[in-house]
Amino acid sequence: MMQNEILEAAKSIAREAGKLVLDRFGGERELTQKGFRDFVTDADYAAQSLIVERVREQFPTHGFLAEEEDATLSDNADIVWIIDPVDGTTNYSRNIPLFCVSIGVAQAGDPLVGVIYDPVRDELFWATKGGGAFLNGQAISVSTTDNLADAIIAHDWSRSPTLRDVILQIITQLAHQTRSLRAMGSAAIAICWVANGRLDAYFNPSLSAWDIAAGQLILAEAGGIMSGFNAEPFALDDPSSWALATNQRIHLTS
Amino acid sequence: MMQNEILEAAKSIAREAGKLVLDRFGGERELTQKGFRDFVTDADYAAQSLIVERVREQFPTHGFLAEEEDATLSDNADIVWIIDPVDGTTNYSRNIPLFCVSIGVAQAGDPLVGVIYDPVRDELFWATKGGGAFLNGQAISVSTTDNLADAIIAHDWSRSPTLRDVILQIITQLAHQTRSLRAMGSAAIAICWVANGRLDAYFNPSLSAWDIAAGQLILAEAGGIMSGFNAEPFALDDPSSWALATNQRIHLTS
Repeated sequence: MMQNEILEAAKSIAREAGKLVLDRFGGERELTQKGFRDFVTDADYAAQSLIVERVREQFPTHGFLAEEEDATLSDNADIVWIIDPVDGTTNYSRNIPLFCVSIGVAQAGDPLVGVIYDPVRDELFWATKGGGAFLNGQAISVSTTDNLADAIIAHDWSRSPTLRDVILQIITQLAHQTRSLRAMGSAAIAICWVANGRLDAYFNPSLSAWDIAAGQLILAEAGGIMSGFNAEPFALDDPSSWALATNQRIHLTS
Repeated sequence: MMQNEILEAAKSIAREAGKLVLDRFGGERELTQKGFRDFVTDADYAAQSLIVERVREQFPTHGFLAEEEDATLSDNADIVWIIDPVDGTTNYSRNIPLFCVSIGVAQAGDPLVGVIYDPVRDELFWATKGGGAFLNGQAISVSTTDNLADAIIAHDWSRSPTLRDVILQIITQLAHQTRSLRAMGSAAIAICWVANGRLDAYFNPSLSAWDIAAGQLILAEAGGIMSGFNAEPFALDDPSSWALATNQRIHLTS
């Protein structure tokens, strides 16, 4: 079955890319600034090249949507691999051990397979559409926390000053409503941690397709949901859209 | 030499306690509420008992100051072991892999040895007074970041509503001044990460002796400093005192 073949390939490729990234971790990084507060390292490029090469060997007709610019990649295909070679690049560039490889595969725009590999902790999260979500082979599910007072909620800081103001407004409320807050610097890890119940929710106003392609499916298959901040359906192509990942039991509004 | 003997004992004991804590990680936790937003697990107690037992075997005249209440412990001794068996208990209780064992040893009130062990990443940080700071045997030093715009600064959320308001005021400024912010839920890990340059600063308004006894020495020996928020000397016994750990190159004021 195609879905399983893709899943097994994505798991193997994510592990291989994670190993590459981890092997270079802690060494000197070549850092390139892409934009305001936005950097990329040599390891991001190397991991992305590796992933693309492996996919092309096995699935020559598939397309790509990848974080790091590469004019040879096209997403004009039925099946598209959506790749963030290093999610948490800022952490990675500072040797903060919180980053991961995120690989989502979509068919005709619908998520089919999601794989996220955290090489530091050797944690491989994955899901297939309708097939459940797993961490290192064990089925995972979201937490049962159903009130904010018990909730641990993570968020990240956007690069945009305007969005940082909006985040400040939201955490000004949440700081008093919740048990505690976290900000770890990797969206894909945070979404996985909501999926396996370590966190109760995660929000981030500025995500791209590669940040959530895999995480969205893993979360949904674990019983959670990705939505907008006022429970409207999450729309990645709407720039005003917030990504809010929850266990479906606690509710946040902006 | 006494200091080296204590260091080697502290390293070995921290590893053993870290193994105990990690072995129980991910399983069902017995959770006891100590106060508002304050919990303790069976693993905290078991790790503290283990540490105390090991110290008593080797140094029967030494005293103890430990996070978890134990009427058999006295700090009335020349050399006192200051123990946080699990720093980051909230994380630990939710299976969030960010916690550590912290063991500081002071003589007549002065820090002599500091050891912090992160069992998830197998990272052992240590320092001796005047002997430098190390991570897994490699000398470490603080970052060279000297301006806020490039800085990554971590903080944690106090349990106190009043202090959460003060934190909100501070991060409202920092959110615009810094490259990014983190909140990870373990003071000892954050201080170690300032010591080895992963972070540029960390602040927390509500720390206890066991949270920083080891970290303060590791940070100082790595070239950093623990101070109050307006550069006044850090005074742990002053309840209005903030702990601010920096690389000594960037400066924060409240």
